[in-house]
Order: sequence, then C-alpha cells, then structure tokens
Amino acid sequence: MTGFVSFVSSGPGDPDLLTVRALKRLQQAEAVLYDDLASGPILDLAHPQAEMIAVGKRAGCPSPKQEEVSRRLVEQAGMGRRVVRLKSGDAGVFGRLEEEIAAVTAAGLPFEVVPGVTSAAAAAAAASIPLTRRLTARRLQFVTGHDVTGALPEAMNLAALADPEAVTAVYMGRRTFAALAARLIAAGLPPDTPALMAEEVSKPGQRFVSATVADLAEALREAPSRAVVMILYGALAEPRLP
Amino acid sequence: MTGFVSFVSSGPGDPDLLTVRALKRLQQAEAVLYDDLASGPILDLAHPQAEMIAVGKRAGCPSPKQEEVSRRLVEQAGMGRRVVRLKSGDAGVFGRLEEEIAAVTAAGLPFEVVPGVTSAAAAAAAASIPLTRRLTARRLQFVTGHDVTGALPEAMNLAALADPEAVTAVYMGRRTFAALAARLIAAGLPPDTPALMAEEVSKPGQRFVSATVADLAEALREAPSRAVVMILYGALAEPRLP
Repeated sequence: MTGFVSFVSSGPGDPDLLTVRALKRLQQAEAVLYDDLASGPILDLAHPQAEMIAVGKRAGCPSPKQEEVSRRLVEQAGMGRRVVRLKSGDAGVFGRLEEEIAAVTAAGLPFEVVPGVTSAAAAAAAASIPLTRRLTARRLQFVTGHDVTGALPEAMNLAALADPEAVTAVYMGRRTFAALAARLIAAGLPPDTPALMAEEVSKPGQRFVSATVADLAEALREAPSRAVVMILYGALAEPRLP
Repeated sequence: MTGFVSFVSSGPGDPDLLTVRALKRLQQAEAVLYDDLASGPILDLAHPQAEMIAVGKRAGCPSPKQEEVSRRLVEQAGMGRRVVRLKSGDAGVFGRLEEEIAAVTAAGLPFEVVPGVTSAAAAAAAASIPLTRRLTARRLQFVTGHDVTGALPEAMNLAALADPEAVTAVYMGRRTFAALAARLIAAGLPPDTPALMAEEVSKPGQRFVSATVADLAEALREAPSRAVVMILYGALAEPRLP
C-alpha cells in the first residue's frame, strides 16, 4: 500500500475559487497538512475522517521549521495515506514547493501538483482589472516582498522592477513596501504610478486601497499584516472596487 | 430585467481545472461566448439550454474582430441574459479583457471577473516544478511572444527578460521563440539556461520538451502551433515529465 501526496493549491481563500480537482482531492484525503488557520471554510471541505494537521507559519503557535513540515508529510504518506498538502494561492508561486517535493521524492513517494488561482489573479479579478494590456503592459511580474529573514531582499533587479511598462505584483510585501517603493522610485519608477493594495482577497475581510505608489508606501508604513500589493501601470485606468 | 456578464477564466483546458465558481457560472448560463473549439469538454458543462456562441480566433473560421466580440457580448447581456464570456487560462493574463470590460461598462451592464489557473501555473504543476525558488528565483515574469501583428514585440525590456535569476514564462510564444531566444542570449542570458516547452497543457495532447534555451529555439524554428514556452532558471533542477 503506497501513499500519495497531492500538493493542492487552495487559491486565495474562498472555497468557490478552489479548482474542481482540488475539491476532489480534499474530499478523498486521509490526511491534510495545512498552513493557515484562516483557511477554515476550505478545511471544512476535507473528508470528515481526514486527519487535519496544522503545520503552518500563521497558525498562531510557534512555527514548525520547513524540515519539520517535510518530515510530517513523508511520515503521513509513508503510512500509505492519501495526503493533501494544502498551499495557499498557487502552490508553485512563492510557496516553498521545491523543498517539499525534494523531501517526498527522496522518500520515494509518488506525488502530484494541483495548480490553482494565484493571489494576484484573484485580486485583479476582484477589482475588475486585467493584469496585462495589449500594446502597453505586456510584461507581468511577481516578486516577494521579503526574504527568509523577513526583510526586503538585498539583491533585486531594479531595472526590471522599476519598469513603468510592466505590471508588478508584490506578494507578502506589505511590511516592506515603503522600502521597496523608495528603491523603485529611486530607480526611475514614476511616484504617481497607480497602485492597488489588496488584502484578504476573496475572504470576508477583503479590502482594497487604490493610490499612487508613493501614497501607498506612506499609508503602509505602520500597517502590520501581510497583503498582496500590486503596482499597476498601463492597466485599466480605474479599478472597480467591490 | 438586467443581464449580467461573467468573464470566466476556463483554466488550461481540463474541466477539473475550472474553479468551482466557473463551473457554477457555466451551469447557470443562458449564453456562452467562447473562443476555442478545443475547449469542448468545458463547453459540455454549460447549461443545456444555453446558447453557445463561437467568437473565437481559433475556431477554424475567419476571426471576428474584437469589436464584433464586444458587440455580441453587449447584445446578449442587453437581452437580459446571464452571459458567460469564457476566456482561456486566467482571463486577466493576455486575454484582452480590458477591451471587453470597457464595452460592457459603456453599455451600463453589470459584470464580474472569475479568476482562474493561468497556463504557466498549469504547465509547471504538470511538470512538477515550482515557478519560484527561495533565494535564487524570486522574480517570476510572464510575457507574450507576439504583438497584434503576430510578430515578436519590437520594444521589450531585455534587461528584465534576460535576467538569469528570474523565471520567465512566454505565452503564445512558439512561433517567435527562436527570435526571442536570440535577443535574450545577445542580452546576456546564458544559452544553456534550462527551458521547458509545454503545449496543450492538461489536454489529451499535452506534450513537453525540456532543453536549453538555445536548443529549444533551434527545435522550434519550424513548429507551427501555439504553446506556452517557459524558460526556467533556478527552479527545481529536473522537471518530471508525465
């Protein structure tokens, strides 16, 4: 009896934004490893007998190390179980998927990756804006606002990021956004580039702030929580905020 | 009686990769406007009484102009219908969503955007690779391989695209990939950067080619069809092709 690991993308949080395949995997799961207590409504969709294992960094308790997450994953699948490893957004985007695939592979266990709706796509859809625009916004880029220490990464390709013809989505970038914006503006991004901050996308606490990059940086200086921040340029003139 | 337009992302093609919300919208639709005859299995999920309207550029018949697509959309919703405008991948990514939103808005019709799984995320999941890597691949970018004329866009941010520390997904880039690769290599991208070509992702004809950028460009010189091409660097060493 061989176990099986499904790395399942949960999307931004609303159960309606799970893929059909993700829903099926949850319904068939014998164990579910999850990160975030806030994913409550999605966890409710798991098979009632599934063992629910919190391994997350945002579960309110001390964070298990990545190695501990991988160890639990291998342990559960090694028992012959159908294991769902739930990852927010799309599992392949800033999700540390590689480390967990490596652990599962090293243990000789079969796995699959179920793709999902990444946060920037969900935020853009909720604000009724496209992420690209014919002729003027043909490059879309995603970056993370912090490195392993929680600080803004030291080495960044500023020529790429300060390009006013790109649309840039900054993931988990709220705490470091003021520093990032300062760097981008110094590198040539117009301070009045339109920006949209989205938090708790698709969840009951969903909130948007639409402003210029400079004003948004100012407004976020003291805000504590994590969020997707999107810098928009060349996209639809005005987001339609719900 | 007011109509309503749902811009629905269909994902890469496998009905299992629709979101639950996309599936619901199809099941409730009174009219479905779609692009691609190849999306057959997804179209089968629409309400049996829904009027199915092909407006696509890949339907084998002469392409309706974008204005004609917008006109049909407004016409259908103006009749008071629940209209689904199906768009492949994620509707906001290289989908010309803006033009259609503008038409619907100008007609005073309400709408929503249902986000979905974009092709690069689906391709990466099928090949079991992450799209980002902690420390070494922290910027992910999507570009399109052609402009409105079908040629490689003239103006590109080559410093951004030739960055060996980014992961780049090129959409609809098969025909122009040789030219793009030549420009990127001239701009400093190592010719041995690992690349993955994915076509018909999640569909019965799914196929991958894993090679270096230089070799892939050579191999694609004569290939006619469209595909997602991904240039990988810093991601998991070896894709696991199904």
